[in-house]
Amino acid sequence: MEFLGKHVILELYECEASLLSDPNSVSEIMQKAATIMGATVVESAFHHFSPLGVSGVVIIMESHLTIHTWPEYSYAAIDIFTCGDIQMDKGIDFLKEKLRSKKSEIKVLNRGRLSSISNPLKSIKN
Amino acid sequence: MEFLGKHVILELYECEASLLSDPNSVSEIMQKAATIMGATVVESAFHHFSPLGVSGVVIIMESHLTIHTWPEYSYAAIDIFTCGDIQMDKGIDFLKEKLRSKKSEIKVLNRGRLSSISNPLKSIKN
Repeated sequence: MEFLGKHVILELYECEASLLSDPNSVSEIMQKAATIMGATVVESAFHHFSPLGVSGVVIIMESHLTIHTWPEYSYAAIDIFTCGDIQMDKGIDFLKEKLRSKKSEIKVLNRGRLSSISNPLKSIKN
Repeated sequence: MEFLGKHVILELYECEASLLSDPNSVSEIMQKAATIMGATVVESAFHHFSPLGVSGVVIIMESHLTIHTWPEYSYAAIDIFTCGDIQMDKGIDFLKEKLRSKKSEIKVLNRGRLSSISNPLKSIKN
């Protein structure tokens, strides 16, 4: 293991705008995505911003999922951050399908480089 | 404006481990960072995972801040996602100072490329 976490940056374009402006739909889809990946949901919070857009987070035992939607642009910015054994691909496919995205971009970042951590074994023993 | 949002990926190494394992300290520091940047806090949620580590999110009007801590590695993974006029540098400096990080890395990602959005003007008019 060279890194502590994996972070997927998901840009979903050309989504179904009506879904992106409905906080209940967004919340349900994000929580379902977490369980489909095999994550354990700890807590979630979603907000509808007037007149448009939803922001939300699902805290999972394995880290988090977040979403921000711009219905006026049919665009959703999603992050999936995990530090456990998670089937991310299943969650990504589910989100693209449920939000009816016709165009997407994915970046994968590694987080927490172990070689940048000084004396990790010493820290663990303390 | 070429992008809808700006996303700072902040890797804080060599932090004060005792702070990273205290959910109250982590919550207070993250919420203060949001206000120092000029953001409006909407809601926050923080969890302490047994035996170590804190996960938390601050939803702001301008998007979100998240943190995951690994006290055993003196490491914190922080994200700051904004879509408004925010003084991110002030928040970043505050977080580094308050968590006593001696080594850090920053990546800045742009989110929501407007040229990837089809017919944004049409969408706005609908």
